[in-house]
Amino acid sequence: MADTVLFEFLHTEMVAELWAHDPDPGPGVSAGLRGEEAGATKGQKMSLSVLEGMGFRVGQALGERLPRETLAFREELDVLKFLCKDLWVAVFQKQMDSLRTNHQGTYVLQDNSFPLLLPMASGLQYLEEAPKFLAFTCGLLRGALYTLGIESVVTASVAALPVCKFQVVIPKS
Amino acid sequence: MADTVLFEFLHTEMVAELWAHDPDPGPGVSAGLRGEEAGATKGQKMSLSVLEGMGFRVGQALGERLPRETLAFREELDVLKFLCKDLWVAVFQKQMDSLRTNHQGTYVLQDNSFPLLLPMASGLQYLEEAPKFLAFTCGLLRGALYTLGIESVVTASVAALPVCKFQVVIPKS
Repeated sequence: MADTVLFEFLHTEMVAELWAHDPDPGPGVSAGLRGEEAGATKGQKMSLSVLEGMGFRVGQALGERLPRETLAFREELDVLKFLCKDLWVAVFQKQMDSLRTNHQGTYVLQDNSFPLLLPMASGLQYLEEAPKFLAFTCGLLRGALYTLGIESVVTASVAALPVCKFQVVIPKS
Repeated sequence: MADTVLFEFLHTEMVAELWAHDPDPGPGVSAGLRGEEAGATKGQKMSLSVLEGMGFRVGQALGERLPRETLAFREELDVLKFLCKDLWVAVFQKQMDSLRTNHQGTYVLQDNSFPLLLPMASGLQYLEEAPKFLAFTCGLLRGALYTLGIESVVTASVAALPVCKFQVVIPKS
């Protein structure tokens, strides 16, 4: 019964804990969450970065446990589709609602009811609270992609809760 | 596929993150983890306390989602049996291996292959690393008991990895 909600409870506690401490940032705070942290203090940016890093490592570890056959696809778009279906179901018990691309390495993954935002009231009221609930998942996507051989920059944006867009940019090598 | 391991990955990252920071303890650090933190620095005790607190709140939240009929049992021993079976399966996909009691409010719950210790080599080599992987779960048990109307003190001890004993002491009111 509880295993499906366990991750969400733990994630909530983790965010609350990291946010409460609001640690002084050391030098060299990494970004990775551009565009969604306007107005955040330095300590909050550090917390976002820490959450993103945790997500990255969990995403890497999940990526390593993916079924072998999934490692066969070589088309970038196939990899993104895989994340939207299999990874999302594994983590959130639902599929991503839409996937769009400009065919130039930029992908927009939209979840119309992102589970980690659902506990908050819908609409605009708590919009500024959203970034801290997205950082881990940005890292998760980046980590899973990394294990699948793709380096990327993942950011998230919310126009109105609980709709969330993840933007994956894959630089051309 | 991944949802069963997701909690374990996230737990591992959380422990690593809190341990890395080793924050200066403020005044009034709570205990709750007596007997397993010999030799820990003040900062490490603080981290254990933070982990225990996170576990407590997750345990409370899980407790609130338990099926209604489980709230009917009034015997202390029934509640403990419930934790050993249903709660443990929900979180760790296995039952606790044994439950003993002195019938005076002290219960010893033994897990012969505690999942959060399994990634470490068996035996004595990494014994001193064990407490940080137990604090969250001590809190989880205490939180679930609290929701079921029982205040308790939960500690954990390890004689040889991955065997773990959780001791639940319920003060007589």
